[in-house]
Amino acid sequence: MLAFARHKDQLGLRDVARPSPAAGEALVRVRAAGICNTDLEIIRGYMRFEGTLGHELVGVVEACADASWLGARVTAEINLACQRCDLCQRGLQRHCPTRRVLGILDKDGAFAEYVTLPIENLHRVPDGLSDRAACFIEPLAACFEILEQVAINPRDRVAVLGDGKLGMLTAMVLSNNGTPPVLVGKHASKIARAQRMGIRSTLAHELSPKSYDVVIEATGSPSGMQLATSLVRPRGTIVLKSTYHGELTLQAAPWVIDELTIVGSRCGPFPPALSQLAAGRLLPEGLIDAVFPLHDIERAVQHASEPGVLKVLLQMP
Amino acid sequence: MLAFARHKDQLGLRDVARPSPAAGEALVRVRAAGICNTDLEIIRGYMRFEGTLGHELVGVVEACADASWLGARVTAEINLACQRCDLCQRGLQRHCPTRRVLGILDKDGAFAEYVTLPIENLHRVPDGLSDRAACFIEPLAACFEILEQVAINPRDRVAVLGDGKLGMLTAMVLSNNGTPPVLVGKHASKIARAQRMGIRSTLAHELSPKSYDVVIEATGSPSGMQLATSLVRPRGTIVLKSTYHGELTLQAAPWVIDELTIVGSRCGPFPPALSQLAAGRLLPEGLIDAVFPLHDIERAVQHASEPGVLKVLLQMP
Repeated sequence: MLAFARHKDQLGLRDVARPSPAAGEALVRVRAAGICNTDLEIIRGYMRFEGTLGHELVGVVEACADASWLGARVTAEINLACQRCDLCQRGLQRHCPTRRVLGILDKDGAFAEYVTLPIENLHRVPDGLSDRAACFIEPLAACFEILEQVAINPRDRVAVLGDGKLGMLTAMVLSNNGTPPVLVGKHASKIARAQRMGIRSTLAHELSPKSYDVVIEATGSPSGMQLATSLVRPRGTIVLKSTYHGELTLQAAPWVIDELTIVGSRCGPFPPALSQLAAGRLLPEGLIDAVFPLHDIERAVQHASEPGVLKVLLQMP
Repeated sequence: MLAFARHKDQLGLRDVARPSPAAGEALVRVRAAGICNTDLEIIRGYMRFEGTLGHELVGVVEACADASWLGARVTAEINLACQRCDLCQRGLQRHCPTRRVLGILDKDGAFAEYVTLPIENLHRVPDGLSDRAACFIEPLAACFEILEQVAINPRDRVAVLGDGKLGMLTAMVLSNNGTPPVLVGKHASKIARAQRMGIRSTLAHELSPKSYDVVIEATGSPSGMQLATSLVRPRGTIVLKSTYHGELTLQAAPWVIDELTIVGSRCGPFPPALSQLAAGRLLPEGLIDAVFPLHDIERAVQHASEPGVLKVLLQMP
């Protein structure tokens, strides 16, 4: 089968053996997959990942020991946990210290014709939901994680930094939750696009310092953390959605003087993302800029890396 | 009167006019004052403070429009707030954006024979409490701030980084609260001293990584933040008590990957510090290494700056 993978530092589309599901796993034929910024970073060498990339997917179960899954259209949680350690026992499987992560850490991902997945990671995709919308379940779940971690009140002033995919999805999720944020971007064209999607957006210099109860950092840039620190009010909260690789250099004194709370936030719960998508309350398809067939993945990656481009999807044969 | 002050970059003990209380203020004759690390930093230039230093004090009210305070032995909260802005109205006077801070920002402090203070900042010192113990009320209040900000459960594993004054006081407060922490130090002699005071203490390399629910950073050193990040468990909390001047360079990726919460923590509530000191539940006098008269303050500051020295107090004439 075709797979976009790195082997011994060689990255590319190649013909590999179709994977066989281990005990407790399902074989899923991939129908579509999303390219995420993490994929672009892995392509640049992040995590030194070897194997097939891709972790935002929708597909159909073709083989599974539990027959009730056969033929089901599914998406999947990306952290493969041991289910036995202390953290797993406490319900923190996404933090299992020996976890593998789909297309990111020690587990072949979804930029391929087939992928194997633990049955416990599968979620059925409701019939009314398109493959394209279903590709947003995983990144939307990461946005819902913010609501699990931080109590945001309807009267709170919330700013989301970053006019990329993650920032826009976060703004959508927060708006649905009753606290429409202001999205803060650097690019007039992206801001205009967000506004067309109903997201209130602005440039950073138009905001008052120290006036936001919650600031969500989703720029992916170290300068975003400094901007967040300047915008949040004393005793306010910064949610860190960007993963900074390498070292971050910043002024930390205001964190103590203003008694800020900084909350790191990674993967999140699938059920609210699934149910709000199915109910038509989240409409992320406006973020899709292009859809490429799997055999064109190198062009798809190239396109996804261009400035101003939001979501790029892959469609499988 | 004598005062230890900086004027036009000249730091020293000098004869200055006795201050006159403004409306709403009391004139307090200082009896004793503590030298804090913040004072040592201000002496090195932090905050570019001009005026009389000192913010940990006990004294006697000698003049006050409200006669009920006359003759009272008092200590005082150090943040002088406007009481009118949004933050003050919400009870966040310690974060008032136009606050002055005793001996730190735009307000003459307590390394002097007399100091003026807003009546609303005063707290009566109970009769049974010595002047020496009363000098610890302000730094102990800063430790109680942690308990206001973070829910620490009796079963939590807690580490306090830093074997200086702040670390030891924090360990005492947490122990009284039912969660004896492990104090993590760099100096065998200080660790032995903490142990003699009943504080469980150890060297950093003896601890297991990613195993503490709460880590309190009180080293004052940028490397303390990195150590805290390595010791806290996924979804755990780091409390930042150290103020880092200048830039901090660190690896922030684990904050997101492990979904850590980082809470900056500064000044705290006086009442629990006062009541636990008065009840004899907190016994900080073991931290006092020397007491100097005010006219010897330059020697006192020198002594307080020496490695291994904990609390140095000033006694007024």
